[in-house]
Amino acid sequence: MQVKDLGEFGVIDRLNNMVIQRRAGPDNGAAFDFHLLVDTGDDTAAWHTGPATQLFTTDTVVEGVHFTRQTTPWKDLGWKSLAVNISDIAAMGGLPLYALVTLGLPPETEIADLDELYRGMLEIGNKYGVGIVGGDLVRSPVVFITVALTGVQRGGSMLRTTARPGDVLAVTGYLGGSSGGLRLMQEQVKASPEATRYLRKVHRRPVPDVAAGQILMEAGVVTAMDISDGLSDDLSKLCLASGVSARIFADRIPKHSLLKEVFPDHYLDLALNGGEDYKLLFTAPPAVMERVMTQLPEGASAIGQITPGEPGRVVIVDSAGTETVAARHGWDHFSGS
Amino acid sequence: MQVKDLGEFGVIDRLNNMVIQRRAGPDNGAAFDFHLLVDTGDDTAAWHTGPATQLFTTDTVVEGVHFTRQTTPWKDLGWKSLAVNISDIAAMGGLPLYALVTLGLPPETEIADLDELYRGMLEIGNKYGVGIVGGDLVRSPVVFITVALTGVQRGGSMLRTTARPGDVLAVTGYLGGSSGGLRLMQEQVKASPEATRYLRKVHRRPVPDVAAGQILMEAGVVTAMDISDGLSDDLSKLCLASGVSARIFADRIPKHSLLKEVFPDHYLDLALNGGEDYKLLFTAPPAVMERVMTQLPEGASAIGQITPGEPGRVVIVDSAGTETVAARHGWDHFSGS
Repeated sequence: MQVKDLGEFGVIDRLNNMVIQRRAGPDNGAAFDFHLLVDTGDDTAAWHTGPATQLFTTDTVVEGVHFTRQTTPWKDLGWKSLAVNISDIAAMGGLPLYALVTLGLPPETEIADLDELYRGMLEIGNKYGVGIVGGDLVRSPVVFITVALTGVQRGGSMLRTTARPGDVLAVTGYLGGSSGGLRLMQEQVKASPEATRYLRKVHRRPVPDVAAGQILMEAGVVTAMDISDGLSDDLSKLCLASGVSARIFADRIPKHSLLKEVFPDHYLDLALNGGEDYKLLFTAPPAVMERVMTQLPEGASAIGQITPGEPGRVVIVDSAGTETVAARHGWDHFSGS
Repeated sequence: MQVKDLGEFGVIDRLNNMVIQRRAGPDNGAAFDFHLLVDTGDDTAAWHTGPATQLFTTDTVVEGVHFTRQTTPWKDLGWKSLAVNISDIAAMGGLPLYALVTLGLPPETEIADLDELYRGMLEIGNKYGVGIVGGDLVRSPVVFITVALTGVQRGGSMLRTTARPGDVLAVTGYLGGSSGGLRLMQEQVKASPEATRYLRKVHRRPVPDVAAGQILMEAGVVTAMDISDGLSDDLSKLCLASGVSARIFADRIPKHSLLKEVFPDHYLDLALNGGEDYKLLFTAPPAVMERVMTQLPEGASAIGQITPGEPGRVVIVDSAGTETVAARHGWDHFSGS
């Protein structure tokens, strides 16, 4: 059965029922006196708000640009489309709350595939306490999924504009695994079953670092962003926003042993430029950094410093001490490709 | 200059600057103790929330499905893509507040066209107090625009689920003009300059009925929705959601004299089934209805009643007293077409 057989309203009913009946997981709003008043199905969703800081973000994935059906099964696509948004909330130090899901679909989309998509969304949504409270369904020649997500937090948000020279730079986990997984699948690279499983999973099921975001915020970190376009590029953006430069040491970038095993010649490039890692990049004065690093899980590493200088300039120091200026804005969906 | 020449980050910078520098209009959040803390440019937007009811909606327009570049100039497309979302907020009885704008664009999109698009968005945004606080820019083979919009309100929202037998049914203004305008352009129908101007404008620049929504809510109306898919279809949806039937009188449906002039044989069909009117459809007990109708502008009319019976059934009574059951779900983007 395809979308065109069930029709717009049939599909909406089916997805709304799934979303309401299978909603579970933590209620991140309760502690902030936020309560859902109008669920999916009316002109808008509505909730009561208590005094808090509310967060608001959106991210879109487009078939052929951000994913292919060959490398990302529908269920993983559902997981990922929500994960990339939760990651933005995590980077501010917040907890995710309510989502609107917009689906652009060709009429020939299989209903069974849509069910899988929503199973993936519900799986991650229930894990992190995200309630899907509405959305839109439109016909489109390519599949696209847009999620708009709110979040809540107490206290100040962690920003990109507040890095200062003297800050230590760190990341909350291993980098390069997602792009390693994509390459493994696209180029059918030979690898051990263990490495294949690990790299595929990291690519298909990115894990937003909400817990790390909470730890950072509580430890007094004020500067953070999530790494979606690759360490080098995102660090450059953070430096540009803060009006500073940065210096990172290639050796100190956390790379998983299985990534090194499969890509002995390219793991550094993948970790620097790969993208879709969804770990957090953050900066803090040395005393704060020392305190916070002990609370973060395996993989979290201090990788360099914020320095004065040209805004957005990132210098990479390799193991021989050679310095290279990182190319900026390497990930541009419009130019070049 | 095209999107691919300026590149993803160049385009984002340009649009962010426009949005921040030219933001104006009423601050709908102030009275609710809502204040913007983090503007466009970080991982997410953030605002302080006071105690209130917050609304949350999204709507997407896709090239070739919801608009063509021939019938909708870019500036009007910007206006319309925000208008359809504001209309959903209006239908709940709320005031619009913060928007995220997602643009799906082919690399060959002209920057001058994008500027026009944002001029249209800013024009309506500033009129209604909508702040664009972020978004996403993605490559896509067709143009699509997704807006996610929040709103605020005091007291209860007007819903689709609360219509009761005995309620009078009414709309807040003229219907059929938007689809009349589209047909006029597509079929190059001959019409007076005055009628051409009127019908084109109604199609290209729908005016969300925020003021009417406020009037309804303050008068104690509890049931409303906006008319986007056509009176007949949307009324059927409202009846289905409320578990009731409805009976409307074709003569009483408000049709503008210029629509009748241009489409003497089809104006009723356009008013019943045309879509994209963005007036409000509402129901209330006779006493409430009598009070509220005196406060609404020209065009607002009581058109029928809510009746007991099969949920979603809509009967149309013509001038000769003949009854027809309206076809349901006439507007389906996936089936049939």
